Amino acid sequence: MIIKRLAVIGVGLIGGSFAMALRRAGVVDRIIGVDTDADNLARSLSLGIVDEISDDALSGVSGADVVFISVPVCSIAAVVRNISPSLPAGCIVTDGGSVKSAVVSQCDALMPPGCRFVGGHPIAGTEHSGAAAAFPELFAGKRCVLTPGLTADRESVETVLRLWTAAGAVVCSMESGHHDRIFAEISHLPHAVAYTLVHAVGTADVEGENVLSYSAGGFRDFTRIASSDPVMWRDIALMNRDALLASIDGFSASLAELRRRIDNSDRAGLTEFFTTAKQFRDGIV
Amino acid sequence: MIIKRLAVIGVGLIGGSFAMALRRAGVVDRIIGVDTDADNLARSLSLGIVDEISDDALSGVSGADVVFISVPVCSIAAVVRNISPSLPAGCIVTDGGSVKSAVVSQCDALMPPGCRFVGGHPIAGTEHSGAAAAFPELFAGKRCVLTPGLTADRESVETVLRLWTAAGAVVCSMESGHHDRIFAEISHLPHAVAYTLVHAVGTADVEGENVLSYSAGGFRDFTRIASSDPVMWRDIALMNRDALLASIDGFSASLAELRRRIDNSDRAGLTEFFTTAKQFRDGIV
Repeated sequence: MIIKRLAVIGVGLIGGSFAMALRRAGVVDRIIGVDTDADNLARSLSLGIVDEISDDALSGVSGADVVFISVPVCSIAAVVRNISPSLPAGCIVTDGGSVKSAVVSQCDALMPPGCRFVGGHPIAGTEHSGAAAAFPELFAGKRCVLTPGLTADRESVETVLRLWTAAGAVVCSMESGHHDRIFAEISHLPHAVAYTLVHAVGTADVEGENVLSYSAGGFRDFTRIASSDPVMWRDIALMNRDALLASIDGFSASLAELRRRIDNSDRAGLTEFFTTAKQFRDGIV
Repeated sequence: MIIKRLAVIGVGLIGGSFAMALRRAGVVDRIIGVDTDADNLARSLSLGIVDEISDDALSGVSGADVVFISVPVCSIAAVVRNISPSLPAGCIVTDGGSVKSAVVSQCDALMPPGCRFVGGHPIAGTEHSGAAAAFPELFAGKRCVLTPGLTADRESVETVLRLWTAAGAVVCSMESGHHDRIFAEISHLPHAVAYTLVHAVGTADVEGENVLSYSAGGFRDFTRIASSDPVMWRDIALMNRDALLASIDGFSASLAELRRRIDNSDRAGLTEFFTTAKQFRDGIV
């Protein structure tokens, strides 16, 4: 047992899977679920994901050792502002948002004395959402990045680390700005590029032809992430704006270099460019 | 039976699968395979993909009703130049290259009197290559685009169309420049973008961190096509240079527009951009 009482705010794929994984690991005694979607909340109780439910975050967190906030990244600070009056002394608040600098600085500023905020970002997900999509193995072998801010101490970081480890994740810790620059490159830029590619091809005018009707498996695989939730990605793009703009500029410089080599029919330069990229790609499989 | 004798030059995934599909459909009597790779050629015979083999294209095509050239797109014209002295009168030469304008104009110019060139592009493939990877269902339900040029007549186009239909493909015909503009958008641009994305992320310097080590499933799926053969994509980029440059410019304009909306924190504009892209993407599934 690591903690007695866990409050999960937002019992969706991430929050629900976190609760299920911790329960299965036997590291938490009692779990309360809070959600604004009454149907989803009732489902989380009937599926046994949580022990009790509340539609009111303020009362739901009373008595919690740890509060896990798993709501859209732009709403995390608002949730913390809402619950802060009833956070018990010594409570640890953590989250699962994919942007960290803005979240950590906002939530640090909202922590009551004696409470700790430890930013977190589990690198896991599926294309499904909601409590019904949750499963306890979601984080098994996946990375989870912790980004402790000003209010976090050694003990609170250690507790959150132990919880994620119990959930099966491989945990590391880093400065929130460093996290945001890494994920601007490896996650937010690829989504921006995928949306842009589909947008560009979809609006391309080739003698009035519906170009998309010629898409094959490669294009479908390549652009699957452009089916992600537009509002979520709007919020991520805005929450991590500066790092994402820098990543887009780096990508644009690479594309301009590739364009130059094609324009110059630079055979050696193109072979080098494509080979270098292939080596990077093959190195991550 | 549609033809008596088929010569397949380049018995790899495409050439081998075409031979197997036509044999299974019972529309060709005898198939000869030609390949510069002696091991691959011997394998195509032992696997029963072809009835006989030759390492010499010039003699291999003698007596053929149809010659199918399935070699790297920049080598197709060289193969036609090599075999043209021994092409029998009435022979139909076709190919499987993914760029058509340059190939069709070059091959048309090399056709002996009475021989016909019918450009072709089956929209099918896997990540594997060689005769051992071939299978007769590869083209089932897949599109195949024919691009007849100056030497093609109604009869030769009809014969190639019947062969691809027998192989299971859904065949259409269009002008070669139109084909190249469509595939610059739907295939060549996505590959250029995938290579560029991996190149940019792989060379990004985030405080000396190996950013690629944080890649998750989305990045891997999204960049799988950057594992394709660099030399093949160099050649495609050069063979379809003008159309690809235009597609890259269209993509760059879309990316600049997305960047502007992020920079301006334009919430409505970002929602619109991502939603439009998602609708295009969801429409092709």
